[in-house]
Amino acid sequence: MKEKCQVAIIMGSTSDQDTVMFTCEVLDEFEIGYETKVFSAHRTLDETVAYAREAYDRGIKVIIAAAGGAAHLAGIIAGCTSLPVIGIPMKTDMMGGLDSLLSIVQMPAGVPVATVAVGKAGAKNAAVLAATIIGAFDESMHQKIVTYKQEMKEKVLANNK
Amino acid sequence: MKEKCQVAIIMGSTSDQDTVMFTCEVLDEFEIGYETKVFSAHRTLDETVAYAREAYDRGIKVIIAAAGGAAHLAGIIAGCTSLPVIGIPMKTDMMGGLDSLLSIVQMPAGVPVATVAVGKAGAKNAAVLAATIIGAFDESMHQKIVTYKQEMKEKVLANNK
Amino acid sequence: MKEKCQVAIIMGSTSDQDTVMFTCEVLDEFEIGYETKVFSAHRTLDETVAYAREAYDRGIKVIIAAAGGAAHLAGIIAGCTSLPVIGIPMKTDMMGGLDSLLSIVQMPAGVPVATVAVGKAGAKNAAVLAATIIGAFDESMHQKIVTYKQEMKEKVLANNK
Amino acid sequence: MKEKCQVAIIMGSTSDQDTVMFTCEVLDEFEIGYETKVFSAHRTLDETVAYAREAYDRGIKVIIAAAGGAAHLAGIIAGCTSLPVIGIPMKTDMMGGLDSLLSIVQMPAGVPVATVAVGKAGAKNAAVLAATIIGAFDESMHQKIVTYKQEMKEKVLANNK
Amino acid sequence: MKEKCQVAIIMGSTSDQDTVMFTCEVLDEFEIGYETKVFSAHRTLDETVAYAREAYDRGIKVIIAAAGGAAHLAGIIAGCTSLPVIGIPMKTDMMGGLDSLLSIVQMPAGVPVATVAVGKAGAKNAAVLAATIIGAFDESMHQKIVTYKQEMKEKVLANNK
Amino acid sequence: MKEKCQVAIIMGSTSDQDTVMFTCEVLDEFEIGYETKVFSAHRTLDETVAYAREAYDRGIKVIIAAAGGAAHLAGIIAGCTSLPVIGIPMKTDMMGGLDSLLSIVQMPAGVPVATVAVGKAGAKNAAVLAATIIGAFDESMHQKIVTYKQEMKEKVLANNK
Amino acid sequence: MKEKCQVAIIMGSTSDQDTVMFTCEVLDEFEIGYETKVFSAHRTLDETVAYAREAYDRGIKVIIAAAGGAAHLAGIIAGCTSLPVIGIPMKTDMMGGLDSLLSIVQMPAGVPVATVAVGKAGAKNAAVLAATIIGAFDESMHQKIVTYKQEMKEKVLANNK
Amino acid sequence: MKEKCQVAIIMGSTSDQDTVMFTCEVLDEFEIGYETKVFSAHRTLDETVAYAREAYDRGIKVIIAAAGGAAHLAGIIAGCTSLPVIGIPMKTDMMGGLDSLLSIVQMPAGVPVATVAVGKAGAKNAAVLAATIIGAFDESMHQKIVTYKQEMKEKVLANNK
Repeated sequence: MKEKCQVAIIMGSTSDQDTVMFTCEVLDEFEIGYETKVFSAHRTLDETVAYAREAYDRGIKVIIAAAGGAAHLAGIIAGCTSLPVIGIPMKTDMMGGLDSLLSIVQMPAGVPVATVAVGKAGAKNAAVLAATIIGAFDESMHQKIVTYKQEMKEKVLANNK
Repeated sequence: MKEKCQVAIIMGSTSDQDTVMFTCEVLDEFEIGYETKVFSAHRTLDETVAYAREAYDRGIKVIIAAAGGAAHLAGIIAGCTSLPVIGIPMKTDMMGGLDSLLSIVQMPAGVPVATVAVGKAGAKNAAVLAATIIGAFDESMHQKIVTYKQEMKEKVLANNK
Repeated sequence: MKEKCQVAIIMGSTSDQDTVMFTCEVLDEFEIGYETKVFSAHRTLDETVAYAREAYDRGIKVIIAAAGGAAHLAGIIAGCTSLPVIGIPMKTDMMGGLDSLLSIVQMPAGVPVATVAVGKAGAKNAAVLAATIIGAFDESMHQKIVTYKQEMKEKVLANNK
Repeated sequence: MKEKCQVAIIMGSTSDQDTVMFTCEVLDEFEIGYETKVFSAHRTLDETVAYAREAYDRGIKVIIAAAGGAAHLAGIIAGCTSLPVIGIPMKTDMMGGLDSLLSIVQMPAGVPVATVAVGKAGAKNAAVLAATIIGAFDESMHQKIVTYKQEMKEKVLANNK
Repeated sequence: MKEKCQVAIIMGSTSDQDTVMFTCEVLDEFEIGYETKVFSAHRTLDETVAYAREAYDRGIKVIIAAAGGAAHLAGIIAGCTSLPVIGIPMKTDMMGGLDSLLSIVQMPAGVPVATVAVGKAGAKNAAVLAATIIGAFDESMHQKIVTYKQEMKEKVLANNK
Repeated sequence: MKEKCQVAIIMGSTSDQDTVMFTCEVLDEFEIGYETKVFSAHRTLDETVAYAREAYDRGIKVIIAAAGGAAHLAGIIAGCTSLPVIGIPMKTDMMGGLDSLLSIVQMPAGVPVATVAVGKAGAKNAAVLAATIIGAFDESMHQKIVTYKQEMKEKVLANNK
Repeated sequence: MKEKCQVAIIMGSTSDQDTVMFTCEVLDEFEIGYETKVFSAHRTLDETVAYAREAYDRGIKVIIAAAGGAAHLAGIIAGCTSLPVIGIPMKTDMMGGLDSLLSIVQMPAGVPVATVAVGKAGAKNAAVLAATIIGAFDESMHQKIVTYKQEMKEKVLANNK
Repeated sequence: MKEKCQVAIIMGSTSDQDTVMFTCEVLDEFEIGYETKVFSAHRTLDETVAYAREAYDRGIKVIIAAAGGAAHLAGIIAGCTSLPVIGIPMKTDMMGGLDSLLSIVQMPAGVPVATVAVGKAGAKNAAVLAATIIGAFDESMHQKIVTYKQEMKEKVLANNK
């Protein structure tokens, strides 16, 4: 575990790694400490639950969960923690990830999962969302987001020159 | 718990009772003992898991789980038992239950949920499916299913007289 | 504006009020200060943008936006603030809210919206999600969420007695 | 027919073989005897029906049917047997297999098909589900499933070392 | 059976009668003889198959089958006859009849079902389609269709006066 | 035009030729005379309408129309003829052909299109459906269909030897 | 026909009148002359085509077509005129109007239909869109739109007082 | 800016250029002056808004906006101008562009976006639609469209020789 690890990334399968690496890249950009785990809500439930229950006390501020298909991972973690949980729906063969999206976002009252877009854009945005959550309570992170947005803007505008 | 309880019915919310009662009716018709529980994969995970893990040793043969929306209940139970788990997708406002159906049926390899139709027909069929599972190993139950099918047939044919 | 207002709720139309009142109820339960506004990304863009841009400096920690159909409100606000933005998709006639959901969740990289379920469950969860975000940095809010989860659990278990 | 054949696998077309081989692999792993047939509900109805009607008396415990598109195979078999029937929806070009899934799962009351996920995961899970059905009445199969689950768990956890 | 019965209407359930009556009305309008049966592909397969196989020799020219959900009826009949089979998808709760439509229309090569619209419009059109099939080989029926179209046209144009 | 041309095939675009060739192959197999045309309901409406209106008098018995996307071709032809019109929905990029299917099948009362499956299977089935329509009034075609079905059956059964 | 009639509204059925009246209301508000017709692309094709072909010479600037289901009306009109054609998809039972929407919007290259939202909002917007088209070439209409937008804005802002 | 620029094309991302080039090609064919911009409703909102607000005074007659996913660009522009706005939905991985389509077309009353088909056909049609809008008020453009349609017709008919 890195020093001052604020974000936990949990993926349901090693095959999600190609998508989750975009989350990691953006967290690195924001210099947010994180750790990654491979846990399954169905195959390693005890470890998933134990990890989620201890996360708050270990100083984690945000948990990011990536899963596809029935995609129960994010919801189960959300049931086991008081921390904000961000869900990244993985692309799937059957419906392009719409099945993953619905399984993650349609949570019952009382147990929210903050759901982002399917696939790569969602993976990046999970990290940006984590940054905004931290930035709401941390002026230096707030500044980093302001700068990040300014850079995005300039990149777009450069296309018009 | 009834004597010789072979089927456990777990519903995610008391609002599922209006649908699950059709499961109970059909189990009664087949004289299959059952018990019903209200458990939530998100709100009462420990109790859900404990129940699922003990079911085999308590003599349960089939677990039926009814849930709607993100509908993680059946999948989580399936991860915690060696018994066959039948999932009934509840009707929902957004997509008529298609979200529930996808969340229940699209399970990852190794952790199947035997999914039936959305709503009332599915609720009845969960019971019939349980009967067929028991009947595969129990001649008297097999006979009851044969009779049940014969009666269905006669009912349909009666319409043509 | 209430004293120590931490959450801003923006709805796209007064017709969203019947759903958003569930968000307000849960925020009241958690004793989180909030203010509500009716702003449209298409009809009152300047006011929407100005509000979103000033929110951080006014001490807002989380912005919740409720909208239906094309549902651009949450995304536009997310583009104008460094704060976390939660989007509640309103139910619609055409697709039960699936159109709203897709318009809110499928944001491009760099501008996330933390999307919750369609309709009433989502409205409640937007408030709970806001509580978890605040609770990640505030021990007393953390305690309130722990208690809230404990009460949900007991309510479910009471059904089995 | 293998000695002590407990599972029958029926596929609607030889093109389903690439998917059904995952079912066979898992059945082999559990040392469950099976036989495979290619039958079509539309082209070889008499043979399909005769096979399904005789299956119970031949000692078959579970019938697995794989089909795509209109996918009537599993439902027709379910109408002709008292045994549990598991349906594997094949992937399709039009909707990724959603059409197959709906045709298999939306059965009328009285004639259930235990439906699993579309494609490869579903094919594996049809075999695991058959194992759980047998295992509910056979201690040694139960033990095999417990071991199978334990191995899946260890495989996932190994990724975190 | 009426004298010179040319069309057979088979419905999967008595609940389909409210829709199928529109088929009957239009057949009456065209003075096409027909008979109606209630047969289920799952509950009365033998009777369904026998009926379909004898239909050609009994002088039936077109078979119309109405079914909902998994809706296997039309497809099974199509497999058992050389006659043209028209399928009417019944409206359903889950997807408004899209599930019925896909189950009926997505037939494999060699076994077509002539599918019409879901519900009432489809029920009427099943009769009109039968009339066009008969009319292709029967000059007096052809004239009736020409008149029918002329009357439809005049009805629409009357709205503009 | 071939001698005794009974079927007209109209495609909306030359790009549909790769699919429509399967229709031609099956018509050849049944020795049914046909002619093919490229007509667009939007670009060559007058020619489409004139062709459809004259088809009956030219001895055509069935019109097959293939189109994709908005796919208005089959419906417009159906409005201009008393003959049975079969619609083949072309595969599309957006929804795999579901858009084409809905545009073809959801016709208003009075103007049916006999819709078959999307793409290749549908293209073959359009021809088989035409054969069944002709066969309902032509004993020798009826015999050909009986033989065709017998051969399909034997082909499937051969896989089990 | 009113004096200086600039917009033609064509509906596919009298049942569309309840929706199209919202178009009329908004055109009245903008003081744009219009006429309404009931024409069907399938039942009154000649009249539809003739009307569309003459519209430009009669001084019509925009044609609005409302239709549901297969909804071919707007597309056929678009093929017969050089004028801009706006399509309003009617709500339907099966898919809430998604079928109408796809049938109207997915037009082939060269024959666009300017599609608006399903149902009432779309009906209003068809009129506003017509106003913007006229306003692009007419300063006084431009001013009316500016005022209309200003009033919408004030109405929304009034909710926040 | 070209001389007498009448159309503005705004794309949400440089990756949309491959699609938008078909719009440019058709505008060139009609000799309609245009300019292209890359603007994002989320990343460069101020520039997008300023551009849209000035477009009328700069002599622009039609604004074309291309965007994918949440696709808010067209709607935001429509809120900031009295000009007609045409939206081109970009193809997406998840749903083939259905998400883009719904986000663009389902606009609230008062703020229409004239939506065309997803992808390449839509890109071409955005240009044709712009031509029809200009042609409604410009005889020479009207003539060009008449010629364009005539050429399309001849191209199709040439396939039948």
